[in-house]
Order: sequence, then structure tokens, then C-alpha cells
Amino acid sequence: MIKEKMTQSFQILAETGADMWLVFGRESHTSADPCAELVVGANYTWSSAFVFTRSGRSIAIVGNLDAAEFRKRGDFQEVIDYVGGIGESLRRVLREIDPATIAINYSVDDVMSDGLTHGMYLQLCRFLEGTPYPARFISSERIVAALRGRKSAEEVRRIRQAIADTEALFAEVSRFIQPGRTEREINAWMLGRVREKGLETAWTPAQCPSVFTGVPEAGEAHTGPTGKKVERGHVINMDFGLRHDGYCSDLQRTWYVLREGETEAPPEVQRGFQAVVDAIAKAAEAIRPGVEGWTIDDIARRHIVGCGFEEYKHALGHQVGRSPHDGAGVLCPVWERYGQLPYLKVEEGQVYTLEPRVHIAGFGVATVEEIIQVTPAGGKFLSSFQRELWLIR
Amino acid sequence: MIKEKMTQSFQILAETGADMWLVFGRESHTSADPCAELVVGANYTWSSAFVFTRSGRSIAIVGNLDAAEFRKRGDFQEVIDYVGGIGESLRRVLREIDPATIAINYSVDDVMSDGLTHGMYLQLCRFLEGTPYPARFISSERIVAALRGRKSAEEVRRIRQAIADTEALFAEVSRFIQPGRTEREINAWMLGRVREKGLETAWTPAQCPSVFTGVPEAGEAHTGPTGKKVERGHVINMDFGLRHDGYCSDLQRTWYVLREGETEAPPEVQRGFQAVVDAIAKAAEAIRPGVEGWTIDDIARRHIVGCGFEEYKHALGHQVGRSPHDGAGVLCPVWERYGQLPYLKVEEGQVYTLEPRVHIAGFGVATVEEIIQVTPAGGKFLSSFQRELWLIR
Repeated sequence: MIKEKMTQSFQILAETGADMWLVFGRESHTSADPCAELVVGANYTWSSAFVFTRSGRSIAIVGNLDAAEFRKRGDFQEVIDYVGGIGESLRRVLREIDPATIAINYSVDDVMSDGLTHGMYLQLCRFLEGTPYPARFISSERIVAALRGRKSAEEVRRIRQAIADTEALFAEVSRFIQPGRTEREINAWMLGRVREKGLETAWTPAQCPSVFTGVPEAGEAHTGPTGKKVERGHVINMDFGLRHDGYCSDLQRTWYVLREGETEAPPEVQRGFQAVVDAIAKAAEAIRPGVEGWTIDDIARRHIVGCGFEEYKHALGHQVGRSPHDGAGVLCPVWERYGQLPYLKVEEGQVYTLEPRVHIAGFGVATVEEIIQVTPAGGKFLSSFQRELWLIR
Repeated sequence: MIKEKMTQSFQILAETGADMWLVFGRESHTSADPCAELVVGANYTWSSAFVFTRSGRSIAIVGNLDAAEFRKRGDFQEVIDYVGGIGESLRRVLREIDPATIAINYSVDDVMSDGLTHGMYLQLCRFLEGTPYPARFISSERIVAALRGRKSAEEVRRIRQAIADTEALFAEVSRFIQPGRTEREINAWMLGRVREKGLETAWTPAQCPSVFTGVPEAGEAHTGPTGKKVERGHVINMDFGLRHDGYCSDLQRTWYVLREGETEAPPEVQRGFQAVVDAIAKAAEAIRPGVEGWTIDDIARRHIVGCGFEEYKHALGHQVGRSPHDGAGVLCPVWERYGQLPYLKVEEGQVYTLEPRVHIAGFGVATVEEIIQVTPAGGKFLSSFQRELWLIR
């Protein structure tokens, strides 16, 4: 897996025209660069440099106690170890390659390309003082975005497994949800099943799943489940994901709790849910390599507003992979807080969520989150699209 | 717990003379500042600022979707939310407090004080362009070192529980270790017990426990267990730790596998083990608030060398807490790779490991790692000091 992503990085360096990519860090247990899990693969303790060149070389410069593990793994063509300090080896490698540009992991807009801490940036500049190299630093944003975004067959297989496990638990919890049970009880029951099945949640268990029943009172997202009880006539939604072999799912599903005498949801609930489903279908149909992310958000957003609902206060979708929010290209509106991200172009092989939502007055929030992969023919669903409301009797 | 550490931070700001401490970050799931678990406590998504002042104010400026969770928790006196961008609120708060110094989380030497990424540093400077504040930035090293180092009663209680769970598993594995079993099998058996008991390892399970049997062949540390088999006449050591309610243990123990006809370890094995035990006892007796870390390392190191063994190629001890390597003050020799760390003064309330080791020619490596807390009367053992070799029959 590490070798697969390393090879991809050599191609991406050639495409972007950068001579070298330098991942520089220390104490990976405490302060992990998000790129390390993609192209480093082992832990490192003291200041360490991982060098990838356009000509296809990979070099690890690490402390002596870490070197044996890197040699054993064999992912790097060269492993250089040091005892005193990294400076000399690092300068020697740079002088030998003499790159015209050196991409390092900092980015104002993208968290996934921003793994270099400010202290380590200062340390790097200090080690290279008096050399021409600090003046050749560029941001690795474009490299990292392409490397994380373009999913290999093995990466997609792992995401699919995480999705399958997630869908199996959604099916199970449909039998647990009952009037009188609280959001917190539903979260705890799901986490119990996660433990029993030996699975791992994709984000912090206190909010995985997040559970929202009925009309929201306070903050509607990024909040842990509360003691609020499920009641007849509630729309319930749940946001849940699992991690399988390092790769994540992130899905949302919506239920309706039938009132006495009802055999289906009231028309206004059905209309709200249908608006969400149709917005997803339209976005999945329209997405193509080369379009700017905001244009896909716009299709879904206009559909929701056209159906008479308020627009959702977040992006239509984000990439999924090693992390449930996999960084860089986002299907988001042109709002100030997204910086330059809306204008990034969608690429073939990227895996996105699609997750519009509507507030259905008096009932609750309907939201469905699916996962698609970008192909030249549109978005291919990796998840089983929830096209019907799930009913609780 | 968050409030306890926040209150401590106000005192430390007063001691160090800094007016304000600013923790600035984003996407805590992906890019967590090591300080966030101490004084923030909840997750944050967009650019967020956590402000602590010498006069005892705590302010969180976070994106609108995160604000509800912060308000629910109630740890911060003020929670300010934003939709567009953080810049305006941040400038308003700074203008109002007008601090003469602003400690931010960057450090060349200490990873625990270096949570601000370079991209976020640039973002911060951009938001504060045209104000006097970037010129008032200082490193938060001293604040963070004191805050992590001085353990409260509750923090010590959690560390003690992690230690107790670790010691229970060491007792169990003594019955599992047998000639013919491999290092990898011993690691797997321990991890099985960790799962069955619902515990959590303190570091990556592939190396927790690390297991070394007999005379080392390649890299002796930071390497996963191998297929090497336990044999009669081997000295075996294991490095293992657990995390309880966010706090870690980190302990090492040593066994000897009796040969046919032996009822105790050979004299040279006993001498090696005793050298380790006595080095720990001397260091624990000598440690005091106010001494420089290197002087304690020196006592243990001289004892080992005086007993005729080669000196260990690492520090005598490190702090333990939220992380098994808790940063800043270290009991380490004056070697280049430790920078200024050997000269940091030991403080009351800090929790350190003591872990010298010796190579016993022809048998293997003896190493014991204990955990002590610094008191005015010396080091108080939080772990049950292994004073005798453990024998496998």
C-alpha cells in the first residue's frame, strides 16, 4: 500500500513539475503528519526526513533506533540513519539531488497538506541555513490533493468494506429505534455492536453515530447525542461511519416514526425526504472529472431551494479515504470560509460524499449521505442509495 | 479535568509573565494540537482560537456548528461563534485584551509545545496583518512544559490505574512465556488479553508490548516483535503500557528462563539485573525539585558503567501523562540530539520513568522501567518496583 502510493507520488511530481517532495517531522505518535500514513508507513521519533523525487527515488533519513524498522519494511530505496543530528545527512542528500523546487507540507487552506509544524519549519530552515534550498520551498498542496484523491483499487476495496459494515449496522439499529428511547441510548447501543463485532468507528465514538430525533432545539450538527427521546411523528437521522484497514465510511440515514393509525409518512415528510434523494441523484449524475466542485454543490442546492426548503448550511460533499474528511477538493458553495476550495477541479477516481439536508417543519431533519466515486460517466455509487424513508412502527 | 488544567494555566501565565496564551488550530480530528486534550476538551472543525489570559479569562472562538458543543460543556467562560471567517472576532478579542505578549504553540525543541502548523501560523499572521500582535508572539514552551508536567491528584489517580492494569497483565504473561513461544506470539497473547479486558494500549499495538528474547541481533528498540523463539538461558524483556481515561503507563520488566537443572539465574545475569535495579534506586533517591535533568541520568549512568557494563544509548527517563512520552523535561545526558532539554529543571509533581538497561553478554538485555513522581523528599514510586528477576521454569 505504501509502495503503491509512493509510485503514484512520483507520477504526480512529474505532472505538477516539482523536483522533490520532502516530508519532515518528528515523534509520529504525538504529532503525525497526515501524509505519513500514505507514504511513510512506520513510526519515527527524532527529526526525520522522507524524500521523494521526480525521477522516482525514495529516501528516509531517520534516527538510529528507528532505522531497523524502516529497513525491515523495505518501502524506501534508501534508509540513512543518524545518531548526533539529522542536519548533515539532510544537507548531503539535498546537495546530491539539487532540486529546483522542494514541496513541503504547509498549506493555508488544506489541513491534509499542512502537517509540518511551525517549530519544525524553523528547525528545517536552521539546518539549511546558508544553502540555497529554503528559497526553493513550495507548498505540497497540489501533490497531496492528487495523492489522497486518486483512490487505487485496493483503497476503494477498503472503503467499500467500511461502507458494507456501516450499512449492516444501520439495518440492525432500525429494529432498536423505538419511541421512548433516547438519542444517547441509540448511540450507546450502536457502540456496543461496534465493540461486539470488533469494528472501529471512523471518528470520536461520543459522536459516532450522532443521532438527532425530532425538531432540533440547539446546535444541530457536531454535537453529541442528548437525552432527548424518540417520539411518534419524529423524523430521525443518524450520521455514522466505520474505519476498515485504515479507510473510512461516512453515511447518513433517515427514519420516520409512524403515529397511531399511520401506515406511511405524512405527505410533507415524504416531500422533504424526496427533495434530498433527488438532489443526490442529480449531483451524482452531473459530476464529471474536470468540473469545479462548486458547480455540483450548486445543482443540489438549487434543487432543494426549488422544492421550497431552506438551503443547507454546509457543503454538499467532501472526500472520504484515510480520514472521513479527506481534505482538498470539496463540493462546496463559494463562501468565504471555504477559501479557494470551491474552484478545485473534480478528478477521476476521487471518492466524495453527497449529503444535502432539509428541515421539515414540525417533524425534524431529513438527511441522506451517500458515497460515490468519480468516473468519466458520472458518480458511481459505492453505498446503497437510500431512496425510501425507513419507517419505525 | 479541563477546568482543573485551565485554572493551572492561569497560574502558570502569571509565573512566566506571559499575558495571553493562544491555542490556534483547525480540524482537531486530523490535526490535533497536543495541548487541546488538556485545555480545550472538545473537537473543532474550522479555524478556532482558544484564549487564556493571565487575569483568568478563557475564551473560545469557533465555527457556528461547533459552538453548541462548547456551550454545552461550559468549560470556557465565553464562546464566540462565527460563520464567515474567524478574523474579525479574533482581532476584536485581541484589541480588547491588548496583551503585551502572546504565547503560541511552536517550539524547535519540544514536540508537545509545537502544535501550531506552519500553514496555520501563516493564516494567523494574515488575520493579524496591520495589527501590532504578530510582533508580540512568543513560544509557549515554558507554559506547556509546566502545565503537562505538574500532575493534579486526578491525573495521578488515572496514571496509577493504568499502571495497576499493566502490572496485572505482566503477572499473567509470566505464566504464558515458555521456551518455544515466539516474541510475536507473546505480543499477540498480550493484545488478546487487552481486548478481552476492554483495555487500550498506550502506543501502537504492533509494538505494545515490544518483546525481546535472548541476545539482540539487529535494532534493539522501536522494532516490532519478531518470530524469534524463547529458549532456555534467555533473558527476556518487555516494554508495555496502557491508557486509562486518557492517561498512560509505560513499564518494562525482565524475565530469565531457567536452563535444565538451574534453580536460579547464573551470577552474571543476576549481577546485570542488580545493576539496573540499583541504578533506579539511586536515581529515585536523588531526584529533587530544582535539579537539572542530566544530573539524575548521570547518577544512574555512572552506576551502570561502574558495574562494568556499557552505558545505555538513550535517556534514563521521560515524563508520562496524556502521552507515554509526555515532552519537555527529560532525564537525559548532555548529547547534541537532546538540544537544551538536559538543562531543564525537575519540578515537584512531575511524573518520570526510570529505565536504564544493560546487555548481559550471551544472555540478553535486562531492563526495568519504573514510574515515579517527584516530591521534595525524592522520587515516590507509583509502580511496584521489580527488585527481583522473574524466573520462567
